[in-house]
Amino acid sequence: MEGHPTLQLRIFDLNCWAIRYLSKRRQERVQLIGDMLRRECFDLVLLQEVWSEQDYSNLKVKLRGCYPFSHYFRSGVIGSGLCVFSRFPILDTLLYQYSLNGYPYMLQHGDWFCGKSVGLVVIKISGIVFNVYVTHLHAEYCREKDAYLPHRLVQAWELAQFIRAGKGVSRPCPHRHTSKAADVVLLGGDLNMHPEDVGIRLLRSWTGLRDAFTEATRFEGCEDGCTLVPNNCFTVKTELMPFPLGIRIDYILYKAVSSFTVKCEELKTTMGTAPGTDIPFSDHEAVMATLHIQRQGQAAGASLSTAELTLADVVTEARTEVGVGLRAAQRQRYSTGRMAVLALLLLLLQAVAALGALAGLAAGQPFPKLSFSLLAFLAIGVLLLATSLHLFHTIEVKMLQGTEEQMRMVLWALQEHPSDG
Amino acid sequence: MEGHPTLQLRIFDLNCWAIRYLSKRRQERVQLIGDMLRRECFDLVLLQEVWSEQDYSNLKVKLRGCYPFSHYFRSGVIGSGLCVFSRFPILDTLLYQYSLNGYPYMLQHGDWFCGKSVGLVVIKISGIVFNVYVTHLHAEYCREKDAYLPHRLVQAWELAQFIRAGKGVSRPCPHRHTSKAADVVLLGGDLNMHPEDVGIRLLRSWTGLRDAFTEATRFEGCEDGCTLVPNNCFTVKTELMPFPLGIRIDYILYKAVSSFTVKCEELKTTMGTAPGTDIPFSDHEAVMATLHIQRQGQAAGASLSTAELTLADVVTEARTEVGVGLRAAQRQRYSTGRMAVLALLLLLLQAVAALGALAGLAAGQPFPKLSFSLLAFLAIGVLLLATSLHLFHTIEVKMLQGTEEQMRMVLWALQEHPSDG
Repeated sequence: MEGHPTLQLRIFDLNCWAIRYLSKRRQERVQLIGDMLRRECFDLVLLQEVWSEQDYSNLKVKLRGCYPFSHYFRSGVIGSGLCVFSRFPILDTLLYQYSLNGYPYMLQHGDWFCGKSVGLVVIKISGIVFNVYVTHLHAEYCREKDAYLPHRLVQAWELAQFIRAGKGVSRPCPHRHTSKAADVVLLGGDLNMHPEDVGIRLLRSWTGLRDAFTEATRFEGCEDGCTLVPNNCFTVKTELMPFPLGIRIDYILYKAVSSFTVKCEELKTTMGTAPGTDIPFSDHEAVMATLHIQRQGQAAGASLSTAELTLADVVTEARTEVGVGLRAAQRQRYSTGRMAVLALLLLLLQAVAALGALAGLAAGQPFPKLSFSLLAFLAIGVLLLATSLHLFHTIEVKMLQGTEEQMRMVLWALQEHPSDG
Repeated sequence: MEGHPTLQLRIFDLNCWAIRYLSKRRQERVQLIGDMLRRECFDLVLLQEVWSEQDYSNLKVKLRGCYPFSHYFRSGVIGSGLCVFSRFPILDTLLYQYSLNGYPYMLQHGDWFCGKSVGLVVIKISGIVFNVYVTHLHAEYCREKDAYLPHRLVQAWELAQFIRAGKGVSRPCPHRHTSKAADVVLLGGDLNMHPEDVGIRLLRSWTGLRDAFTEATRFEGCEDGCTLVPNNCFTVKTELMPFPLGIRIDYILYKAVSSFTVKCEELKTTMGTAPGTDIPFSDHEAVMATLHIQRQGQAAGASLSTAELTLADVVTEARTEVGVGLRAAQRQRYSTGRMAVLALLLLLLQAVAALGALAGLAAGQPFPKLSFSLLAFLAIGVLLLATSLHLFHTIEVKMLQGTEEQMRMVLWALQEHPSDG
């Protein structure tokens, strides 16, 4: 076993907070990020919130020397914000856009417009196939009353399903008759979940991914590995009030899926400012992991029964939360549908009245034209809006139902065939 | 090699044309389909256009005896229309919704509202893992001037990428350290493409899937395997005018991805009417395949160079078509954006005029109130509509660009490392 050479991989992950016109000192920070990436020469760079394609192109030009391969994932109105820079050739990519991602009418929470997604790039280094995932889940705006929890749970579930499905992606080879699967899975990104949250427990137990922070031999950075800290001048201090140390919501996770072992030798985070400067790279801290990957004599076997029990528990918990979201979505579907029907009735009433007036049936004064037409326009507006919302919540209900059913099926499979497979 | 037992698998595929209120004799036909499926007892049933969840539930109850396992895929406003019935336990499912699927304003072509998708179910029979895909791509409304070709090509590409990514899906097993991939891949569905179309050539060469119709030892059914035939009383005769025999757009495709061989022993289609009755099951003919699956001593090796050359050609061809769609989408994005700006300018002008009148600057007659407010409402309406369309075409441009770039990358990988992997 000791005879196999060890591959060392240095990974960088950062939510860049690069929203055009909105993020403070954006251009300066993107330049700082580029300078540092060029200086440090990581093997793999996973970035989120690079919303401007121009920023990506500038980075690409600047990083051409050290990172000749890169990919920008497009989706939604604004984009996914996800991109990857790599020292090694990217052989294949795939984007999966989450089916639920907030509400279009919550303009102050722009998540819906971003087309939040998970991007996959396949990379092969020294004959080892890596499936590298980068993602950014729906933000948490209010932890006490988190209306987006069901959506984030659906995303965590879809992320896990997508990672499980991606085990076999490999490089272009049309008529391959062998099933060469990925040897190592890496996931980096802003999951917008605290380490103990149900979503991350679901993701980890359903995929078997391990947390680089908890596994690291050496750690250097913010206390508890926090990536949103009060010390960072761009974070909103009031939001972090209940968490004096900050919160940990950015992760590097990993897993060996075949006869390989992966160890996290070192994990680092930035600490409020970019090294050697007085401003931070972003409102998030960067996470940097050094992984050691080694081929094993044989595949590692593990007792599954405890893990499966944990899995069943966490799937049950997640399913309950999805159920809560489902009932809320059903209520909204109902109320928007009712409003659409009422607006339609008002319009019909107006049409009857107008026809009546035309036919000379109305006694006395006709309606004042201006208010009559204003009311008609209002009714049309409400009808259109309520119908759109009704359609939107219909989709939401369907997706939540679908996820709940998938989870039910997984629970069934776990109970029926606990250790088959 | 001959010592390994052969598994026989009977598969049924049908686009059921079960649109509530619109499809002719829907309930009668769904009942006929259910009766026949119960009588024939296939191993696997892949249905499309089961738009009503009630129809699915009725089928589920009726088929409980022979097909104890089933799954209905939810997506979009109306649903995906996809469902699967199986004699064997379904161990996992995943839905991938295509990123492009027509236009919401093309109400007469309802595709956008259906959330067209590909559904995956994982099934294990006698220790062999099957990844079974069911899908329905965007319809072709006018073959001579097919405005939806770029969208259908993006769908074919995403379908291929999803199938390639799914090679490793397997049943619930959280901490699996081996990379057990699927042994056999099956795809059934209405691809809305003729056998020689670029989309199906792309799909086949990029995934290595084989066409049950061309591979079948025995065939029985409509000439040339057509599945939309003039003989069927529900088909629109004028649309089939250029094709006197009909067209073949429904497929069963298959592939063995590890040390297995799959042979199509028999392929059948219905022939305009359901056997023993005077009405058809649907406007499409059903496709029924009998596959023989056998374990091999070792993985089959094949010379890849010719296949890769074909692949490069077909990817280049598809990329050109996607480029055509991209330029059309860019034009529409521009013109809708311009219209939104014009409407905004009109509104601003009105606001200035109204303020001017209020401030008493306007000499002579004020504007007639009614036409003034009607014009304002019109401007607001155009602004909202043009903005929505602009956002929609922005997404379309992004997705087409993304696909074009993925294809470019695949071509690069094929040229750089033609037989690596």
